Amino acid sequence: MDGRRRDGAVVVDGDARQRFHDARGYGRPLDGDSLALTPVEAAHLLFRGDLHAVDGDGFRAFLADTAPGFAPRFLVYKDLRDRGFYLSPAREGWVADPPGGVDFLVYPRGKGPWDDDVAYRVRALGEREQVPADSLGDCVLAVADEESDLTYLETAEPSVAGGTEFDPPAAVDGTLLDDRVVVWDPPEALHHRGFYGRPLSGEGGGDALQLSLVEAAYLAAEGALALDVPRALERGRAVEGERFDRRLRTYRALRDAGLVPKTGFKFGADFRVYDTVESVESLGHAAYLVRVLPSGHEFDPRSLALDVRLAHGVRKELLFARASDDGPDWLSVSRLTP
Amino acid sequence: MDGRRRDGAVVVDGDARQRFHDARGYGRPLDGDSLALTPVEAAHLLFRGDLHAVDGDGFRAFLADTAPGFAPRFLVYKDLRDRGFYLSPAREGWVADPPGGVDFLVYPRGKGPWDDDVAYRVRALGEREQVPADSLGDCVLAVADEESDLTYLETAEPSVAGGTEFDPPAAVDGTLLDDRVVVWDPPEALHHRGFYGRPLSGEGGGDALQLSLVEAAYLAAEGALALDVPRALERGRAVEGERFDRRLRTYRALRDAGLVPKTGFKFGADFRVYDTVESVESLGHAAYLVRVLPSGHEFDPRSLALDVRLAHGVRKELLFARASDDGPDWLSVSRLTP
Repeated sequence: MDGRRRDGAVVVDGDARQRFHDARGYGRPLDGDSLALTPVEAAHLLFRGDLHAVDGDGFRAFLADTAPGFAPRFLVYKDLRDRGFYLSPAREGWVADPPGGVDFLVYPRGKGPWDDDVAYRVRALGEREQVPADSLGDCVLAVADEESDLTYLETAEPSVAGGTEFDPPAAVDGTLLDDRVVVWDPPEALHHRGFYGRPLSGEGGGDALQLSLVEAAYLAAEGALALDVPRALERGRAVEGERFDRRLRTYRALRDAGLVPKTGFKFGADFRVYDTVESVESLGHAAYLVRVLPSGHEFDPRSLALDVRLAHGVRKELLFARASDDGPDWLSVSRLTP
Repeated sequence: MDGRRRDGAVVVDGDARQRFHDARGYGRPLDGDSLALTPVEAAHLLFRGDLHAVDGDGFRAFLADTAPGFAPRFLVYKDLRDRGFYLSPAREGWVADPPGGVDFLVYPRGKGPWDDDVAYRVRALGEREQVPADSLGDCVLAVADEESDLTYLETAEPSVAGGTEFDPPAAVDGTLLDDRVVVWDPPEALHHRGFYGRPLSGEGGGDALQLSLVEAAYLAAEGALALDVPRALERGRAVEGERFDRRLRTYRALRDAGLVPKTGFKFGADFRVYDTVESVESLGHAAYLVRVLPSGHEFDPRSLALDVRLAHGVRKELLFARASDDGPDWLSVSRLTP
């Protein structure tokens, strides 16, 4: 069976509609029994040998004639087909109201374009393509790496809330020491219940508590630390630049939501976050790793793969805090096996 | 017992030499029974209450008077003391031939400055200090994060070699397709024995092999791929810039050393590396994760912590390839609990 290129698609006549669309979910029915295929669909049928040639081109010649960026899309299409899914290119005419920034609508196994269910909205890309953080949240990224292996990353926009209830005590004295703050005589609850700071002598002994600049700036603004708010902010900005304000906004949003952020340094993140803290002794497992993004951030897929792999390995949910006018706009990214 | 500041040190008279140096490894003996302490040592004795004051300053006042960067050094000194080590500041006069770029010489447990053994050469820093990659290889980094928790990272300069023996077959045809290369009719050994490329139909079926640009450029230069070397290089540089040449040099060095590099994308690295590959079926666990550094690279401690944590989690050795005139200069970084 042969096809011909027409208007950026491939048209196949004969009983193509019945063979490829009705039976297997390819393409867009035209008048009669003809079928229009996107280049990716046509390439897949050529690859399988179900289609013989397009304008005389077999699979190899057809592939050589495609535009840059075709390979990742073809590999993802093929992989999802191999996994038993039917899927449609998210192209005007192929699906109703195609969502922006998405390459394929993938139907639940056993379903197809004639049903209304969508299992995944997939965006296919090569590992060298940057991805704006703001374009994610309702799609699956399918990244083809340089060796053509695929990694699927699910993105979502969760709301986050915890169950920690703790009101910091009234103003205690703090001393700014370079890029940290020491509270020499803290009320016990500040660390013990609120999980602020780190005792100077280790978790067991000593009274003095070391606070990070973010903790200090937050507590000072809450009136819980007798330290000039401007001084804390100034020091934070001096050592971190505008990143400090971004991190502080995220820290505040997390505390306000009943969560407890602590440094995520050992995980390469801004914060590890506990859901509910009743006391330091009964501390559970941190539930989230949070990375704070500058506005307009674009992900490098390789760095994203690193963060996702690490979070998965330590069984925490990976959250990115995107800047927005009313506090952070949460984006979660996790591994997916379709 | 009181001390006084003198020439950037703290001098203590009385029986200080006997009490603090001979018995516990602090300071540098002066004439008579006096002892000179570095500010970090003095701060530690003040913290413990073994020293009462320096020029009238107790621990708090002494700390407030220290230079930026003092806190991480003090925290590391204290932590190593808490772990049962004796250590000396790597300062002229305190130790013979103090190594550059190192803050402390740490003696094996049970030993001290009067012995010749050194267990660790420790460089203490805050998480916001950048570290030139070229300054590492024979020291332990001790990083104090913003909450004053410590992470120890051991650095070394290993030599790497594997046991893979495979000579790629003579020139096979390859087609450049955007940012990858397809070999339509590869000899079976190319993938099966040499672990080059990835079959288009998955590991099991199909003949066509997809090569990364790095694999293709290497094979072309070896005469194993009938693809213009300049074309492969040009395409690589077009999609990656000078990073491509760095990665290719590292790839070649690894192959030349009998190792088998494959993409490290899923781990956020440039390559995962197998020690000895006899065939794809009997593939073991990749032994290394390799990240290729641009020349003059400075590590951000947080990113380094991320890489180290991930590599540890997947039980691989983390290697950085630093640029040098004769191929990569290897740097390994791993977690350490002193």
